[in-house]
Amino acid sequence: MVKSVEFNIFRGSDSGEIVPDTSRCALGPFDVFVEITHAGLCGTDRHFKTKGIALGHEGAGIVREIGGSVTSVQAGDKVGFGWIQKVCGHCDYCISDRDQYCDEREQYGTHSSEIGSFASHAVWHESMLIKLPDGLEPEYAAPLMCGGATVWGAMTSYNLKPGDRVAIHGIGGLGHMAIQFASALGCDVVVLSSTASKKDEAMQLGAKEFHITKGDIPEYPIKKVNHLFWCGSASPDYSKIVTLVANDGSIYPLTISFEPSSVPIIALVTNGIKIQGSAVASRLAIRKLLRFVVLHGMRPIIMKFPLNKSGIELAFRTLEEGRMRYRGVLVSQQNLTGKPVVEKI
Amino acid sequence: MVKSVEFNIFRGSDSGEIVPDTSRCALGPFDVFVEITHAGLCGTDRHFKTKGIALGHEGAGIVREIGGSVTSVQAGDKVGFGWIQKVCGHCDYCISDRDQYCDEREQYGTHSSEIGSFASHAVWHESMLIKLPDGLEPEYAAPLMCGGATVWGAMTSYNLKPGDRVAIHGIGGLGHMAIQFASALGCDVVVLSSTASKKDEAMQLGAKEFHITKGDIPEYPIKKVNHLFWCGSASPDYSKIVTLVANDGSIYPLTISFEPSSVPIIALVTNGIKIQGSAVASRLAIRKLLRFVVLHGMRPIIMKFPLNKSGIELAFRTLEEGRMRYRGVLVSQQNLTGKPVVEKI
Repeated sequence: MVKSVEFNIFRGSDSGEIVPDTSRCALGPFDVFVEITHAGLCGTDRHFKTKGIALGHEGAGIVREIGGSVTSVQAGDKVGFGWIQKVCGHCDYCISDRDQYCDEREQYGTHSSEIGSFASHAVWHESMLIKLPDGLEPEYAAPLMCGGATVWGAMTSYNLKPGDRVAIHGIGGLGHMAIQFASALGCDVVVLSSTASKKDEAMQLGAKEFHITKGDIPEYPIKKVNHLFWCGSASPDYSKIVTLVANDGSIYPLTISFEPSSVPIIALVTNGIKIQGSAVASRLAIRKLLRFVVLHGMRPIIMKFPLNKSGIELAFRTLEEGRMRYRGVLVSQQNLTGKPVVEKI
Repeated sequence: MVKSVEFNIFRGSDSGEIVPDTSRCALGPFDVFVEITHAGLCGTDRHFKTKGIALGHEGAGIVREIGGSVTSVQAGDKVGFGWIQKVCGHCDYCISDRDQYCDEREQYGTHSSEIGSFASHAVWHESMLIKLPDGLEPEYAAPLMCGGATVWGAMTSYNLKPGDRVAIHGIGGLGHMAIQFASALGCDVVVLSSTASKKDEAMQLGAKEFHITKGDIPEYPIKKVNHLFWCGSASPDYSKIVTLVANDGSIYPLTISFEPSSVPIIALVTNGIKIQGSAVASRLAIRKLLRFVVLHGMRPIIMKFPLNKSGIELAFRTLEEGRMRYRGVLVSQQNLTGKPVVEKI
């Protein structure tokens, strides 16, 4: 006898049309059945829209059922979940606050055929659920689970320090959170954007300077920065952006393309600059992120869409047309269903 | 009235022929007149051989004369000197053990028209002279001042720790020192080389594994490494070498070309890998390097050549033909002259 659960999901398709479907998964001993109340739309979701998998990888919801060995959450708990489905708990990474790099991680675990966050429910291994702290509304928690975590992980896992000069390049789903985080972390925040109309908002979010870019950099010299977070929508021209970075400084590519980039290695070496790849954040880092956001009263800026076929399609369109301000959140319409099923195997 | 000094140097030339010449420099209040006993030949010197500048940028010698305000060395002191001519002493970098990135550094200071280490003497600002510790012979000190410092700076300034698995890619002037350093630092050292005949030496220097490469990587899978030091003679194929690096790991390009490289940014991001540029080492790091080398009784492996026109030409030829084992050191023949001069201006 095995306990299974049945629920509604939304898949991508070859044509990019959103396809409603039903999914059924076994609920293993360490699995948790979560009712999804909110799901964030991430830039990377665009890559998966034309595949037949269950869509969505960041979200928040309520625990409805737990496997027999689950001890860390119980029914009724509010939880968030992000990019990674499961970690092993015992490799070098898992025992050192770098568990997003777990040797046995089910990478892109959420991009599976049956489980996504654009759904009524999902089945998640308990290891990757994060309990939401009091005072954090789930619609704001959802975009923090991948987008926020990606910024936070890069910003707090390496050598960024209060007083450092930090450039945020691109104000979108990630960039608008990066400005808030870096400002609250005590940094001198410089925003670089090709969109002049975003200046006021950037300054309100915590920027001290705003510079309009043309071809990735301002048309005049600016004081160099210790850290540059690339949150733009395309790959940067590294030969240009490296000139914005001070000696011994860092570049963090947060939004990426699948194509390789041409990198002036000699400029990195002679100036002691690094390009630091960083994927999401560890579980501990995400817990701290949620506490930090509550502590400072900051929130992502979101646009809400209904969590149904037409809502998902509208959200994708808004993102693709560059009109998202700044992170799309799909809100459950409570007309999607999920239920536990007990069956023989 | 200003004190000047006159001495012999060797210049490059358009044709690549080595040209003996005489140089005269003012001896400023913080300058030191050093008799050069040994000069190392660095791979980067090849780029300067066809320019008309004074050649050489790593060496060791004896202080012969000091400017009126010099307090850190005195006549008779044995000193080493490397890539950087002078630092300011008061910028952010200089007050934080990152002085090789000094805002006012005279970058490539030694690659000037009048001062190099392939010479009878040189005039150096006292700030960048390193006193040689007892027990370190100057012929071994010379190659440590740039080559050794480049390896040491990258290996000790970031996050390499005892027990880490470390790959040294390429056994040459830098690589043969990197094997020794990483081994003495307590790492699991893996040597990657396209030259099978270097295996025994690699193992004697401290490697635990040796793998023959073809097109930058072994033809079979090896256990991934936390740190990869690229000491090969050409630019790596980053799409290949990134597959050798464990999640959360680092690549340090130590030998470089002037051409940009194609870098698979997505592989850096999804696996949390960084490319860390690193230039030479701070003054404090170089002092510690010299102490470390004495403490562990390790030495660079050198080939000696006379410090004269034909000796320099032979050393370049040996390097260019891939026959250097492993670092060339030019030894003063004591028939080159230098003298203080007092003149009106």
